[in-house]
Order: sequence, then structure tokens, then C-alpha cells
Amino acid sequence: MSSLETELREQPAALARLLERQGERAAELAATFRRDDVHYVLIASRGSSSNAARYAQYVLGRANRVPVMFATPSLYTIYEQPPRLDGAVVLGISQSGASPDVRAVLAEARRQGRPALALTNDPDSPLATEADLVLPLEAGEERAVAATKTYVNSLGAIALVFAAIGDDRVAQAELARMPAALEEQIELSFGTAPALAEYSDAVGATVVARGVNYGTGFEIALKIRELSGLVVEAYSPADLMHGPIAAIQPGWPVIAVAPTGPSHMSVSELVPALVSRRARLLAVSDVPELLEQAQTPLPLVPGVPEWLSPLVAVVPGQVTAMRLAQQRGLDVDSPPGLNKVTLTR
Amino acid sequence: MSSLETELREQPAALARLLERQGERAAELAATFRRDDVHYVLIASRGSSSNAARYAQYVLGRANRVPVMFATPSLYTIYEQPPRLDGAVVLGISQSGASPDVRAVLAEARRQGRPALALTNDPDSPLATEADLVLPLEAGEERAVAATKTYVNSLGAIALVFAAIGDDRVAQAELARMPAALEEQIELSFGTAPALAEYSDAVGATVVARGVNYGTGFEIALKIRELSGLVVEAYSPADLMHGPIAAIQPGWPVIAVAPTGPSHMSVSELVPALVSRRARLLAVSDVPELLEQAQTPLPLVPGVPEWLSPLVAVVPGQVTAMRLAQQRGLDVDSPPGLNKVTLTR
Repeated sequence: MSSLETELREQPAALARLLERQGERAAELAATFRRDDVHYVLIASRGSSSNAARYAQYVLGRANRVPVMFATPSLYTIYEQPPRLDGAVVLGISQSGASPDVRAVLAEARRQGRPALALTNDPDSPLATEADLVLPLEAGEERAVAATKTYVNSLGAIALVFAAIGDDRVAQAELARMPAALEEQIELSFGTAPALAEYSDAVGATVVARGVNYGTGFEIALKIRELSGLVVEAYSPADLMHGPIAAIQPGWPVIAVAPTGPSHMSVSELVPALVSRRARLLAVSDVPELLEQAQTPLPLVPGVPEWLSPLVAVVPGQVTAMRLAQQRGLDVDSPPGLNKVTLTR
Repeated sequence: MSSLETELREQPAALARLLERQGERAAELAATFRRDDVHYVLIASRGSSSNAARYAQYVLGRANRVPVMFATPSLYTIYEQPPRLDGAVVLGISQSGASPDVRAVLAEARRQGRPALALTNDPDSPLATEADLVLPLEAGEERAVAATKTYVNSLGAIALVFAAIGDDRVAQAELARMPAALEEQIELSFGTAPALAEYSDAVGATVVARGVNYGTGFEIALKIRELSGLVVEAYSPADLMHGPIAAIQPGWPVIAVAPTGPSHMSVSELVPALVSRRARLLAVSDVPELLEQAQTPLPLVPGVPEWLSPLVAVVPGQVTAMRLAQQRGLDVDSPPGLNKVTLTR
């Protein structure tokens, strides 16, 4: 079995470990978010961690209604004109904790006397050293170049902090059930993978998602792209309608990520436009109507609350990415030209 | 001549009109940005206006060092859980001023007693009605579905406000020279367009850009995509290195946007990785070394200060988009399935 598949299957255990060990630390981070002088959250990240950051944007945006912004690292590194950070709490997210640009943003937070927090799988990394408080991701060593369990545990860490900010027992109980849901989802997704054989001719795909799953769309796109070299991109349905839909040609695969919840309708409303462009529709959903409309249903386990659905909704994408690469005879542990740790400024 | 080409050629006159008429209004907006209770800027936008918003993120981020964040409209519309906007000045950018989601963000700003500003080409639009202060784009009627002069005038409006925030006479003088530079750029880009014939077989492309031109990369990608239906995407070189470069296959066109300035190096450092993947390189630049390395040089007029380079750097992209579509026999004024005004929530 590839490292990728092993790690993908380890996700439920890795998530359970995080939840078991890091509740207290999550509460310490939450106290920082609740400070009176905090008006917004500034997140620095790259790659898969940026997709986890998009989850934080929705989940933390709804907890305490705190707005979340993404750092523009070049202002810190290339232009050396970092913004004033009055009112900010700064959060760095990095699996390796090694990228200089993410670290530079945290260093600036400390220089300006603002709280600096880190989510990283390596509590001894340069990023962790720069932070006031570190939440270790507890994913264990990850060997495959494509992140799986570090991604899901980044989401889990954000969910832990969210539940702690509101001291929300219902949310905590819902989160505690996620390792089991994830286990079930992995079995379900491996079961539906054979239907992907018909996409062996694809040159690319578009993933559409919104709201709490907006980041899921980007993560699925990145995973397929990294593993198979296909041109895969992600859009919100609203952004797609403002021009980019022009590139959806007949036969082009579109993966609609639309679990039950307030943003489901925004994605499913796009289906007629996709049908009229004769796209091939894959649906990541637990909603029977949408699964029936799809050429390729990629079902989600039912009963997961919307705010936690990103932890399961990424799994069909991970499995799809792995299968599409294997169909092309590629080594899923070492995609050509990629490294596990990427250092950018 | 198509409406698109007419409007593309009208850009210098449209920009001159904006600069001539709206200096005073820009100063009023600037006063709002300078208020003591303003810690950050929140921008709401869609489509080409989101690419102009990225320019604002860099330019305003450097003026007064004020951080800029993008709104997540679904929190306002679908989830009905808008964030607290303490410390924010809110800016809506919309060519038509008609999209309900952009308007919803401004309405929330007013509800929370925060300043609400709008950049729009229609001062009687719903967006303008919602704003405390409106800066009209003065682009004149735009008939082609793909935005050209409204995009450049959105950049011009942001540049006007930037120069006013710092009461910066040097910047104002530099901006006053841009209509002439734009005129020269349009001639230059039409002159180099014949070299695009060799891309008639392309199915897509990747645009790479950073810093003040990060939004230029997205706008060039959107323009080519809207007009020709090709799959075109944009990345910063740092983000591309964190995984997505896997999809750059032999022969894939990569458009590197890298005018003289601090971010030039970050883009040009990527060239060896692109060469080793045997990509076809198009370079939008005024730097001779980069133009020589490119299979297809798309030269920029020299002497434009970096902070204003996005106003000229988009032009080779607009001309490329038009030519690629015409090579495919498409009507550049009405790309299939697109409308001039898109209403999303």
C-alpha cells in the first residue's frame, strides 16, 4: 500500500488523537481570540494549509463574528512594508512549519506586539519558535508529498478552537463524533471509486463549492492536481458565473461539493447551467436529488452537521485524486517535480 | 471594429477623464481611510472588480500600511451571520453596481455604522445608493461583455485614492502620465500580437504574477478565459510552487507577468522550473533578460513606476485574449453563455 493510502486511512485515528490531546491548548488559543483588543484574525499559510485557512474564515467568522483576512506575504518579504496590525490576532498554519514567508508574518506580529499563534505538525519548527502559543496537529509523521491527515487535522484544530471560543458543548460533542464519521466516509468513498474509470481521458476539471466547504473545493482541486498533473481549479458558484464559466466546455468534468446546509442551494442552482454546457457532473453530497442528477455520485455519509462537513467532504476528493493518478500509472507518493517541504518567501 | 477593440483603444481617454474629474472625490474617500477608528479595509467585489481589489490590497496596504481583506459574501447572504465590522472601512467595487451580494456587504456596513464607499461606473446603481460616498469610474458606456476600460479605470480610481491618502505629489504626477503610457502600450501590444498565432492549439494556460501585479495575473487569466473559453488560471509563483506546478506539462503556455520592480525576481526565479517542465513561456515585462528567455515576448513600455505598472501590464493580456478568440472564430463581443451584468448572492 502507498504511503498516501496508508495516511489517508489513518485520518480517523489522527483526528481522534488531536481531539484527545489538544482540547486544553485549543482553549488557550480561544482566550486570545476573545480578547477585547482583537478586531480581526490575520492568517498566513501556503498550499493545503491555505485551504484549511478558508475553513477558518467561515468557522471563526461565525464564532464571535470575527472577520478573517489572509496575509499577503510579499508585503512582508519582498516589499518590506508590512501593514500595521493594530486589532489583529495573527495565526500561522503550516504542516512543516518551515516556510520562511509564513514565519515572516508571525515575526512581524511579535515585532508589533500582537498575539502570534501557530497550527503546525512540527512543534519544534521555525514557525512554532516564532509563536506565543502553538497547537500541535498531532497527525504523526506524514511521508507522502500530498497532505491528507495533516489537512484534516488542521480542520480539526480549527474546529476545536471554534468550539472553545463559544464554550459550546453541543459543538464539542458533534466534533467528538467526527473520527467515527470519517472512518465510515473512507469506506464509502473507496467503495464508489470504480466509477472514476470513465475519467481516464480527462485533461482537467473544475471544482465548485461554497461557504464552509469553499476551502474543500480548493483542497480537492489541489490534491487531484498534485497527484495526477491534471489542470484542476476551484471556484465558488458566484465567482464562476462572473465570467470563468466560459471555459466549461462539453465533456469537462465539474465536481460539485454540496453537503446538506445553507450553501447547498447555491451550488445546486448551478446545475442547469452546467447541463446546458454539457459538462460531466460529479457530486460530493449527501443530498439524494443532487446525487441522482450527477453522472458520477460521490456520496457523503449522512448526519454530519454542516460546519463539520469539510472533514468528511474532502475524502471523496482524496480518493478521486489517488485513483486518477493510479489510472495514469503515476507514483502517488512522489509526484514528479514536487517536494514535501517547499520554502518560499 | 468590435466593441471590445473600440473600448480597449478608448482606455487612455477614459483614464484621462477619470483623473481630470474625480481628484476631489478621491480626496474625500482618502479622508475616510485616514480616520483614527479605521484599522482595516474590507472590499466586496466579483469578477474583474475582484482583480482590481487585489491591486487595492497591495497599493492601499502600502499607503498608511492599512491591511485589506476581502469579504466572504455568503456570510452576509446565505448564512446571514455577517461579522462585526468594528475598525473597518467597507469598499464595494462593481462596474455595473448591480450585484446583490456586493450590495449586501455595504448594507451591513451601514447597519453597523461603518463607512461604506463604492467604486462603480453607474452612479445611479443600487450599489451607489447604498454607499456614503461614490467614486464614479467615468469609463463611459461599456458594451462588450468582457470588461476593459472599466477595469483600467477601477485601477486608476484606486491609484487616485492612494495618492490622495498620502497627499503624495510625486505619485499624483506619475499617475497623470499614465494615459500617455497606456496609449503607447496599446500600440506596442497590437504590434506584437501576430506572434500569438502559434498558440492556436492551446487548450489552456497559466498566468504567474506577484505583488502589485498579482491582480493583473488574475485579470489576464479571466480575459482569455471569457473570450476564448480556454482554461486559464493565475497563481503567485510561491503558491504555484506549493503543489499546483504539477499540472504544468510540456508545451503548456505560461504567461509570466514581471515588470521592473521588487516582485520581478520572484517571478523570474520560476523560469528554470518552467524550462525543466518544457512549458512555453510568454513574458509580459520591460526587462530585456526575461523577454529574451521567453518563446513569446510581450513587451511593456519602459519607464512606468512599479506601483502603476498594472495599468499597462494588463494590455498585452487584453490583446492576447482578443487575438486567441478571433483565431478560433469567436465573437469577442458576446462570448457564448455570458452576460454583461451577472446577479449573484
